[in-house]
Amino acid sequence: MSEFGASGGRLHVHYRLSPGPGESAERKLEDIAWEQTVEVPRELPSAAVRQSVVGRVESLRATGDGRWDGVVSYSPDLVHGDVGGLVNLLLGNLSMGTGVRVEAVDWPTETLSWFSGPNLGIAGLRRMADASRRPLLCGVAKPLGLETAELARLCGEFARGGADFVKDDHSLADQPTAPFEDRVRRCLDAVGEANARTGGRCRYFPHLPADPATLEHRLDLLDELGVEGVLVLPLVCGLGTVRHVATSRRLAVLGHPAFTGWMLGAEHGIAPGLLFGEIFRLAGCDAVIFANPGGRFGWSLADADDIVRRARRPLGPARPAFPVPAGGVAAESVPEWVTRYGLDTMLVIGGSLLCRDDLAAATAELVAVLEDSAVQSGH
Amino acid sequence: MSEFGASGGRLHVHYRLSPGPGESAERKLEDIAWEQTVEVPRELPSAAVRQSVVGRVESLRATGDGRWDGVVSYSPDLVHGDVGGLVNLLLGNLSMGTGVRVEAVDWPTETLSWFSGPNLGIAGLRRMADASRRPLLCGVAKPLGLETAELARLCGEFARGGADFVKDDHSLADQPTAPFEDRVRRCLDAVGEANARTGGRCRYFPHLPADPATLEHRLDLLDELGVEGVLVLPLVCGLGTVRHVATSRRLAVLGHPAFTGWMLGAEHGIAPGLLFGEIFRLAGCDAVIFANPGGRFGWSLADADDIVRRARRPLGPARPAFPVPAGGVAAESVPEWVTRYGLDTMLVIGGSLLCRDDLAAATAELVAVLEDSAVQSGH
Repeated sequence: MSEFGASGGRLHVHYRLSPGPGESAERKLEDIAWEQTVEVPRELPSAAVRQSVVGRVESLRATGDGRWDGVVSYSPDLVHGDVGGLVNLLLGNLSMGTGVRVEAVDWPTETLSWFSGPNLGIAGLRRMADASRRPLLCGVAKPLGLETAELARLCGEFARGGADFVKDDHSLADQPTAPFEDRVRRCLDAVGEANARTGGRCRYFPHLPADPATLEHRLDLLDELGVEGVLVLPLVCGLGTVRHVATSRRLAVLGHPAFTGWMLGAEHGIAPGLLFGEIFRLAGCDAVIFANPGGRFGWSLADADDIVRRARRPLGPARPAFPVPAGGVAAESVPEWVTRYGLDTMLVIGGSLLCRDDLAAATAELVAVLEDSAVQSGH
Repeated sequence: MSEFGASGGRLHVHYRLSPGPGESAERKLEDIAWEQTVEVPRELPSAAVRQSVVGRVESLRATGDGRWDGVVSYSPDLVHGDVGGLVNLLLGNLSMGTGVRVEAVDWPTETLSWFSGPNLGIAGLRRMADASRRPLLCGVAKPLGLETAELARLCGEFARGGADFVKDDHSLADQPTAPFEDRVRRCLDAVGEANARTGGRCRYFPHLPADPATLEHRLDLLDELGVEGVLVLPLVCGLGTVRHVATSRRLAVLGHPAFTGWMLGAEHGIAPGLLFGEIFRLAGCDAVIFANPGGRFGWSLADADDIVRRARRPLGPARPAFPVPAGGVAAESVPEWVTRYGLDTMLVIGGSLLCRDDLAAATAELVAVLEDSAVQSGH
């Protein structure tokens, strides 16, 4: 696997195989090469199709624990510029099998060139926040069920405390308690007023329920209101929609991990670092939210470290994205996580701050901790 | 669970829990009720939010095998008409946990009324095919890598043999060997010419790579050409996009199972019958393709039976959809599957027919088998 995110010619996919009883690793890898491309009996394709379309088994070796590392390469022409096509080649029918985990991809320059990636990335979000060194902080307007006025008040408090961003909880859509348009207007106003008072630069990022029936209308509204970023659920709305949002508007895009969990099995699925750090990023996410270990979900430290590393690694023209630990990060544990993940991290902290009596003061304390972490790291 | 697909008031979700060592089933179910709604520490929400928004635990009972059946009800206002919101409520953050399988939903009348379901359903597709009793047959233009002319020839052969439909393989998108527009035109022409010769009514359903950047343009093209149905990959393009395709045009929609496999675990995920037979259908699928047991994927007979049953069951205003076994169904095994699944089944048969020397004759033989099955069943 190239660390530089490009492999020149063919698209190499690295699989970790866990063959079942009586299953041959050789056959399993060959089956993948056929299933992800031609999906027909072996005798059917012409020599030309076999040569140019069927995946090519490049290598296979036992790893000593009953598993195998295998590599299959594919023609980049199979994808041809469509993010849905990329998802389908890497993961479509494969999802329906067992014991195959997609670990890594060596991306051909040609494939990378089709996906421009984030509009802003780490550097751009830092410019937006006017924070060149420290980890960034994103508050959360929640819970679902609060009236718009109360959500707006929380946004204002996060802004007053100096959070860089405040986002909607991902469950906020267009419910009667806080309908989309009214919520966006009032949360934006509340953050703007707080910024005017403090001289701060907090940005409000609404959740964009990216349904085609309302998408363009909502994007136009966000444009008109001057909203600079959104939260999206890439696997709910589809990665193609994420790419459309990122390329058709100059928005910052925060990708949320809802609906991804099933894919992240140890034996069957995709390495979280590849999904969040590379595929979400190629589709246009400037920041990728993941479930932090020790929070409400059981993701491993190794997976978290891999997401962090891959979100920032060079990947053709795609800018590095912020890794964003979330899902029950306690404010008091922040220094520990910053030490682990490094300064180019954005923290999403909701419940832990919202439980404090004075939200703005609690936020300001946390921002001071983040400032300290940058000073202490000697940057 | 109501067999009639409506529960009047709240949306009841039935979960099968497999608690881990030391995990309490009570706590696990309560965690779901909080995680799928407010996602905050227990002390935070007001009494009003707790009452109206947090899911309500309705029942929990041990099933004797270390598992538990639990029911949580939710306010239908949480979803509010957006298919992405429905997916998020049922499956969003839950995906990131472990040991929870969503087995069934009692749909409130209100929720069902937001999702109109298939345009045609079983009865409409039967009218399209002029086949009132027998199982329907859908051929497949494949493999990926064939030139457009060759794919068109195969479409013509399926039509000449009397297939009701012929669809693109789901990997066909806009690759240079068979670009979308040219492929659609020529496959459509080939089927039209065959129909003119035989007096048949075969329809060609292209795969619609439903990327927002090209979607409206492609839908306009399909309109202009008189295409009457499409194949979509609901979890790749997003179920909201499926709904948009179904509601904005009068197309028949075949839903493909690519990218669904991870969700179908025995201990964590969603019951295949609920996903394909109800959710895909509510989003607008007239026919739902699933991986037939004994084919290239290892789905169980019980799951297949459940998909078949639920695709046809009453579900508010949503028309019954065709269950479509696929993924390596051998032509010679068709009578056995028809006996099992019943006449309201559509079969997708690709490789098994394509391997025969005379595709049209092989197709015609199979159609005769399907005719026989209807006669023998005494309908």
